[in-house]
Amino acid sequence: MQDIVKSIIQKNDSKIVMVVLDGLGGLPMHGKSELEVADIPNLDMLAKNSACGLHTPVSFGITPGSGPGHLALFGYDTIKWQIGRGVLEALGLGIELKKTDIAVRCNYATIENGLIKDRRAGRIPTEKSRKITERLQKKIRKIENAEVIFVPGMEHRFAVVLRFPAPLEKGAADIMDTDPQKEGKPPVKVTPMCAQAEKIAKIIEKLIKAVTEIIRNQDTANSILLRGFSQAPDIPHFEEVYGLKSVAIATYPMYRGLAKLIGMDAPAVTGGMKEEIDFLKQNYKKYDFFFVHIKKVDSYGEDGNFKEKAAEIERFDRILPRILALEPQVLIITGDHSTPSLLKGHSWHPVPVLLSSAYVFGGLCNSFSERECVRGEFGIFPTVNLMPLALANALRLKKFGA
Amino acid sequence: MQDIVKSIIQKNDSKIVMVVLDGLGGLPMHGKSELEVADIPNLDMLAKNSACGLHTPVSFGITPGSGPGHLALFGYDTIKWQIGRGVLEALGLGIELKKTDIAVRCNYATIENGLIKDRRAGRIPTEKSRKITERLQKKIRKIENAEVIFVPGMEHRFAVVLRFPAPLEKGAADIMDTDPQKEGKPPVKVTPMCAQAEKIAKIIEKLIKAVTEIIRNQDTANSILLRGFSQAPDIPHFEEVYGLKSVAIATYPMYRGLAKLIGMDAPAVTGGMKEEIDFLKQNYKKYDFFFVHIKKVDSYGEDGNFKEKAAEIERFDRILPRILALEPQVLIITGDHSTPSLLKGHSWHPVPVLLSSAYVFGGLCNSFSERECVRGEFGIFPTVNLMPLALANALRLKKFGA
Repeated sequence: MQDIVKSIIQKNDSKIVMVVLDGLGGLPMHGKSELEVADIPNLDMLAKNSACGLHTPVSFGITPGSGPGHLALFGYDTIKWQIGRGVLEALGLGIELKKTDIAVRCNYATIENGLIKDRRAGRIPTEKSRKITERLQKKIRKIENAEVIFVPGMEHRFAVVLRFPAPLEKGAADIMDTDPQKEGKPPVKVTPMCAQAEKIAKIIEKLIKAVTEIIRNQDTANSILLRGFSQAPDIPHFEEVYGLKSVAIATYPMYRGLAKLIGMDAPAVTGGMKEEIDFLKQNYKKYDFFFVHIKKVDSYGEDGNFKEKAAEIERFDRILPRILALEPQVLIITGDHSTPSLLKGHSWHPVPVLLSSAYVFGGLCNSFSERECVRGEFGIFPTVNLMPLALANALRLKKFGA
Repeated sequence: MQDIVKSIIQKNDSKIVMVVLDGLGGLPMHGKSELEVADIPNLDMLAKNSACGLHTPVSFGITPGSGPGHLALFGYDTIKWQIGRGVLEALGLGIELKKTDIAVRCNYATIENGLIKDRRAGRIPTEKSRKITERLQKKIRKIENAEVIFVPGMEHRFAVVLRFPAPLEKGAADIMDTDPQKEGKPPVKVTPMCAQAEKIAKIIEKLIKAVTEIIRNQDTANSILLRGFSQAPDIPHFEEVYGLKSVAIATYPMYRGLAKLIGMDAPAVTGGMKEEIDFLKQNYKKYDFFFVHIKKVDSYGEDGNFKEKAAEIERFDRILPRILALEPQVLIITGDHSTPSLLKGHSWHPVPVLLSSAYVFGGLCNSFSERECVRGEFGIFPTVNLMPLALANALRLKKFGA
């Protein structure tokens, strides 16, 4: 369907703002969900006058990770475009990946007598971690035909990118995580999961050996654990598909990384939602499409903190008038998935969405909540359909067929 | 899915009437849509006792042309079966196309000093246009290996069919329109859009040259503009798939053409909806499936005439009892797409539908409107699913699987 959409794009000077309250959807605790408890008069009023519904990022019953959650919002088929965690991590740390790259998430860890004592090396300070990573980069530059790029991260985290001279076979990065996710166990042996990954697995073994050689005598960060081995996908760019000059406004690296992967601008924005809205306002003339990512709604949900999740949505409600004042032709407010405090994690529940434009009915929902959105004019629909709806409401799609 | 449906067809003597109020769906102006404003007691009563919902002809956000809108209603995959405008036009003018044909929509135009002065040659009278077209046919019968068929149309319009001795390659008709859609410009040079179209492009060039040679000294119709180059699709017939002897009752050529393409009978019916219902009644014993096309609802929507669009729906409401009196086993009332007066054109909004049969719930909608249909038992669903629902409600489908 993205091909069809691409074939009927027309440009105009409309603005589309998509606000993603990460993990927005919830579940009732004591009878009401986070959205139902929150005091959100601005969102309620907007929902009354908007097209509302619920969207399913991957499919019914499927709990999406952040990658598929966002790719679906941007209109990409989440089954076709499966983005590895290593790729997301590396992009989030500011590395521009090439199609010949394999990216890996890494942790410094403490190992004693062959067993993992601390998977996070005592959460060593970022500054110290950075110095180790830089030292590794000085000493390790190439393994076999792979250029090795070390990318410093926060605390114990960093990423490694293996850059090859030519594109790799499909499956080349299908390697088991070496992090067993538990202390007291040895690291998992580097294990290729298909024949195509055998070559890379050998290089990874050599890499681990070379790194350990250098850091084995350090106090805490004396080893590394690797996971999320993944190839950079050859995914079409957002602007190329939709003709929208676009920007991601996000404080967290991973979401900027995801946006960069599809060619969005994603400059570093620090602070919280206030600073994000400042950025939106200051750069409003420069772009057609704005992806505004509000992280903390999800964080509180993951913590099982029902009250603070509701309070964070209330804080967004208070800042919403600043977005409304910009009068975008299309304003979407939704999430990338649900994160019910009850479940302390992502869930499969469809995500409430409202779309405000001059070409909707409205009048079907009394407030902005999961149960009210069921009654909305969009019904329950696959998330990938949200971008075509956004484009249609911005009058950016021509007729299909004669 | 059409293959599955075909495999479980069973015949009986039930009647299915599908009334298509072209461009039925609307949007609120001053708070209410055309359907919400219209005084339609018969439709409201019927909606109360019917299965209601909204259907999406192509996909969310996609505005369908008349071709995909109708093909979806007839249960055909609109992505798989993309029908060119030239094909629709030629069929509508009464030509039966063969699989080796390429059809083109043509206009007589006025050109001065190489620039288009009038794309419609002053909307020359149909009688005059017909004479010119007949003269062209007499003088031009063959170009290279293509038989050339000139088909007279209304006013400045006509069609050309190139009939080849053998089936053509896919892409053979991918040729750019020569009509730039603007006066003051020269006609677009005949441009093949892929290698497979180069041969036909050469023939088209020769055709234009031959035609211009004959008409160049006329006052107004001194040149031609061509668009919608398209191959006749090898599409399965409606009766072959569904086992329904079917007839299209339509006053406009294009809709009859579309129906003929899938093998429906489509005799010329002149007049308006009254004459169409007369025809329905007179031929009720002869067919199993009746596609009744009411054009003017769309026409008023395209004109942005909210009041007359509502009035046209009211006129249909008044005539509806004559259809109800026939007591078809299944009666469907819907549109092929929405044409909100607000947008003065086709739109992407899902189309309200009601299906009346002995096997529905009803009781969910208080009237027949877009917002009431959101609450209906069909929900929001792809238009291609309407035919299986019609067949099921006519008890014309066997169980699937053991």
